Amino acid sequence: VNSYLDSIKTTIFSVMSALAVEHSAVNLGQGFPDDEGPDAMKEKAAAALYDHNNQYPPYAGVAELKQAVARHSERYSGIPVDAATETLVTVGASEALTCAFLGLVNRGDEVILFDPQYDLYAPAATFAGAVIRTVQLDPNDWSVPHAAMEAAFSERTKLVLINSPHNPTGKVFSDEDLAFIAGLCVKHNTYAVCDEVYEHLVFEGSHHRSLRTFPGMADRAVRVGSAGKTFSFTAWKIGWVTGPARLVTAVAKAHQFVTFTVASSLQRAVAYGLDHEVAFYTGLGKMLEGKRAYLERRLKEIGFQVLPAQGTYFLIADFRSLVPVDSTETDTDFSIRLTKEAGVTTIPVSAFYISADPPRTLVRFCFCKTDDKLRQACDALESFFGKRR
Amino acid sequence: VNSYLDSIKTTIFSVMSALAVEHSAVNLGQGFPDDEGPDAMKEKAAAALYDHNNQYPPYAGVAELKQAVARHSERYSGIPVDAATETLVTVGASEALTCAFLGLVNRGDEVILFDPQYDLYAPAATFAGAVIRTVQLDPNDWSVPHAAMEAAFSERTKLVLINSPHNPTGKVFSDEDLAFIAGLCVKHNTYAVCDEVYEHLVFEGSHHRSLRTFPGMADRAVRVGSAGKTFSFTAWKIGWVTGPARLVTAVAKAHQFVTFTVASSLQRAVAYGLDHEVAFYTGLGKMLEGKRAYLERRLKEIGFQVLPAQGTYFLIADFRSLVPVDSTETDTDFSIRLTKEAGVTTIPVSAFYISADPPRTLVRFCFCKTDDKLRQACDALESFFGKRR
Ligand SMILES: CSCCC(=O)C(=O)O
Ligand SMILES: CSCCC(=O)C(=O)O
Repeated sequence: VNSYLDSIKTTIFSVMSALAVEHSAVNLGQGFPDDEGPDAMKEKAAAALYDHNNQYPPYAGVAELKQAVARHSERYSGIPVDAATETLVTVGASEALTCAFLGLVNRGDEVILFDPQYDLYAPAATFAGAVIRTVQLDPNDWSVPHAAMEAAFSERTKLVLINSPHNPTGKVFSDEDLAFIAGLCVKHNTYAVCDEVYEHLVFEGSHHRSLRTFPGMADRAVRVGSAGKTFSFTAWKIGWVTGPARLVTAVAKAHQFVTFTVASSLQRAVAYGLDHEVAFYTGLGKMLEGKRAYLERRLKEIGFQVLPAQGTYFLIADFRSLVPVDSTETDTDFSIRLTKEAGVTTIPVSAFYISADPPRTLVRFCFCKTDDKLRQACDALESFFGKRR
Repeated sequence: VNSYLDSIKTTIFSVMSALAVEHSAVNLGQGFPDDEGPDAMKEKAAAALYDHNNQYPPYAGVAELKQAVARHSERYSGIPVDAATETLVTVGASEALTCAFLGLVNRGDEVILFDPQYDLYAPAATFAGAVIRTVQLDPNDWSVPHAAMEAAFSERTKLVLINSPHNPTGKVFSDEDLAFIAGLCVKHNTYAVCDEVYEHLVFEGSHHRSLRTFPGMADRAVRVGSAGKTFSFTAWKIGWVTGPARLVTAVAKAHQFVTFTVASSLQRAVAYGLDHEVAFYTGLGKMLEGKRAYLERRLKEIGFQVLPAQGTYFLIADFRSLVPVDSTETDTDFSIRLTKEAGVTTIPVSAFYISADPPRTLVRFCFCKTDDKLRQACDALESFFGKRR
């Protein structure tokens, strides 16, 4: 069997979700919302099954979804998008990202990834034979280290992956961050893959701007979106790519041999949602902000140090004050202990690092959960650790 | 962009289907049935959307589908299958096959593919960094050339891909073929990936037997199945892998970073279908046989030479007698001309070859179409070529 994959464990999200089930813990680990998306979309998906339309849709996506994706992308990036040539529908953002690496990179090309990072990027880059250069965001404030970033670029750099709003930190890259990165991409003539699945999950006072909108980037960047995150239907596995035709075509070339095409009934429901359920997804940020505020307050009371964030449905907390000063317990051990003994499941942040020296005292909480469940989790943590305010 | 993919064209199925639409031709190209699967499965899929179950299913598949796949695989192969560890649900057979290469092969390992072959195998093997050895089935009767097959094996062979029933030829590998191949796999200690998506599409007098059932193969072979082919729902994109836990785990390791998981509403409907719509899929062979007989008779009358087949919904015809003896028209040109001028779309068989010297006078017809459509296509061909009997 493949020795690289053999050396990689089952993804942390699956492991922790299974552990949560086993111990009946409140699952604030894996990122999926309790509240589902609009009923009207379910109706469209169900109706589409009865339309005598159950054979292969076009490999790049059904026309109505490609058009809706183009309109949506235009609306939120300000960049014109041609539905026919500049959009691609994929099996969730996962397949979009894997196909982006396979389609854009040649074996031996270098790619730049930030740490912490979503756990799919490195395996997907490795499938493509890419050589990975990693830049660590500063674990104190998740700022982009300029010198390290400049040093990571070389004439062999083929692409940079930018995930903003960022999982697991909740960081929304600032215009300054993005201008700096765009400058490097242009200077070194690289592509950028912009994982923007959380584009609508941004809190008041912050704004998401795509790297693709910066000078010189429109022709070298692809944006990746997700119906799972935009409509809280993570089981539907519908994602999309927008960008210049040449790059989208390259991603589509991989897609046609990875999955070929995407379940059409769900595609059609997402097409409806992008056009008609705007209030749902533009309201997500505000709704999540309240949940975050609650969780942050309670975690601080319990004794966690909560790191700042501007978006997503993740919150990172430092548990150093909750363990003895000389503790050698890792974040992984802490997460497992919390699941088993406190009944609350989190994700150890070191699982998002490929560098050898990750922070070891951080865990990620997912807060797109019912208010009841959040309260239950906080109460459980409070009684487990005792009140410390 | 990736130069290998850049050099590959858009898949022939998409190209010919688009051309068929453009010229309002009867599409006997891309393999998808006119008649859809059971209504009860659509009802299950629709109902599943309303179950508050729209978040990530387990990455290896929902439990009820894994169990149904295990039962189904046991029933038709006779080999016991453990649902939890020996099954994996994928985004159609496409993703199963791509993940099989990624999961089982190390860069530089050799894989053996037959020519003609489904057009996904070589790109998927190439993603995995495999070195491809090709063995041509004898284009006169699609028999397995023993000497060439023996010569293709070496100590660097990691796996053999066997597609039976076979696309595009309709060949169902005989027990003798399979025993010979199994012997080589055991002797050279290789894996086998068995693409058996057409397992139920076999005509009377023939039977499908899985390579995995031959002595020494159960622990070295994985079987790939497809709801698209089994239930005539090609738009649903549900596939599966069964095999020994160690190999299925390896394939799942790739899957978790390629798509992560599969639309759960459709998974649940397929679970229902595998258990409760047995009559549907076990009846497919008989239904298709009648359609094949009709198409074969008409094509012969028109002047095509029809090659023998024992299964699938494909028929290969030689058009040599329909062009001047000194014609240099390729199968691709012939297919395009047929679409544009006769209004009937086929697939040129050379598109299924990666060897440099494919046969050039064969086209593939897909006959899982309504009787009306088949008649219409045959009438159109007949008037185009004139009657020749
Ligand atoms: C694919 S499961 C992980 C979901 C997610 O995006 C996360 O928890 O980070
Ligand atoms: C993925 S489109 C091709 C469908 C098919 O299996 C074929 O036509 O051979």
